Amino acid sequence: MATDSASHLHTAAEPSRDAVIDLLGMLSYGQLVAFDQMSRDARLAPDLRRRALLSQLAAAELTHYQRLADELAQLGVQPEQAMRPFVVALEDFHASTQPSDWLEGLVKVVVGDGIADDFHREVANFVGEKYREVVLAVLHDNRLYDYAVREVRAAIAADPSKGDALALWARRLIGEAMGQAQRVAAERESLVRLVIDGSGSLTGVVELFKRLTHAHTERLRLLGLSS
Amino acid sequence: MATDSASHLHTAAEPSRDAVIDLLGMLSYGQLVAFDQMSRDARLAPDLRRRALLSQLAAAELTHYQRLADELAQLGVQPEQAMRPFVVALEDFHASTQPSDWLEGLVKVVVGDGIADDFHREVANFVGEKYREVVLAVLHDNRLYDYAVREVRAAIAADPSKGDALALWARRLIGEAMGQAQRVAAERESLVRLVIDGSGSLTGVVELFKRLTHAHTERLRLLGLSS
Repeated sequence: MATDSASHLHTAAEPSRDAVIDLLGMLSYGQLVAFDQMSRDARLAPDLRRRALLSQLAAAELTHYQRLADELAQLGVQPEQAMRPFVVALEDFHASTQPSDWLEGLVKVVVGDGIADDFHREVANFVGEKYREVVLAVLHDNRLYDYAVREVRAAIAADPSKGDALALWARRLIGEAMGQAQRVAAERESLVRLVIDGSGSLTGVVELFKRLTHAHTERLRLLGLSS
Repeated sequence: MATDSASHLHTAAEPSRDAVIDLLGMLSYGQLVAFDQMSRDARLAPDLRRRALLSQLAAAELTHYQRLADELAQLGVQPEQAMRPFVVALEDFHASTQPSDWLEGLVKVVVGDGIADDFHREVANFVGEKYREVVLAVLHDNRLYDYAVREVRAAIAADPSKGDALALWARRLIGEAMGQAQRVAAERESLVRLVIDGSGSLTGVVELFKRLTHAHTERLRLLGLSS
């Protein structure tokens, strides 16, 4: 099969088995904590209709977990073993960014899951066709983002003073996320190797992070939270 | 279509629209709180494998919610409107019976959802063929009960001293559940009517509650919690 997309040009070799296991493990645990977070957030809903909707979106997201667990099993790895290295960083991120109300929860979904999905979409290009498809299949559903963006915009339109506090919240989220991402990078060399090898050069890595930053800024604009 | 089962012999008339809406509303809200409770309980899991499994079972249960919401919509009722009368009783039940550990959570699933499912299975016979099918379709999955029973039995086998505390917990659960059921009965005449008309006589109602009590005792035995 031809791999003619630009992002494949630099890929020197197949990714290491360790890198694939780390990526699938990180995604698996990400699914569990996202489910946990969204089912908590549903409790913050201002009414039963919204509570039901977010509960349903949370449940729908978790269906991806089995796919990842199956792929890990095929690699001869227990999912819990692959997830373990990421538990502390992801738990710390969520513990330090517990939404205090419905809108903070939705902003967290868009900003936090949004940048995580963007990163995974980039890395998907570095793991070969088979795992690329797996990673793309487990990204969050657009329905979720669309819903969250609509809700946040409507709330700010109704009460513009909410925008400032939520913009501050978004900055805190991204700060905490970057802190934990650095921690993971410091501990999981295989993932760092994957990004560097996949990007082809340090310039490539810089470009990748520029794209993530740009998409993040775009999301803030969409939410009505850009300054 | 012939309705020749014994439980239909006494059914004098079609159930009232109010009774059907109440039943579907109670089931809908029951789904939301069961999802909420199980996703909380997943956090109490002693390891990632068990946490993933209970999260998956919670997500699977919530798929039933849409079916109920669709049926209510067909009756021209907003789901949140139909759920509202049951919010306080169900929230109070869950607030007063928050599991403090993994095993208490699983005993609550078996005992609490078990007796609720039994009650709904009985009432399903009183609402006509169409809604009977709906009610039966949204009962909890046996996989959930089987899993919970296995876990609790294994834990008691490993440490028999746990049995006494869990037996006490099961008694508290059933006491709280009965208290809230009486509260619902006092407020929702349509549901009381449904049970009395469906049972055909007060003797029939007594028989129904005898069957519920018997099945509950049987579940305690299965869990290894009978005295």
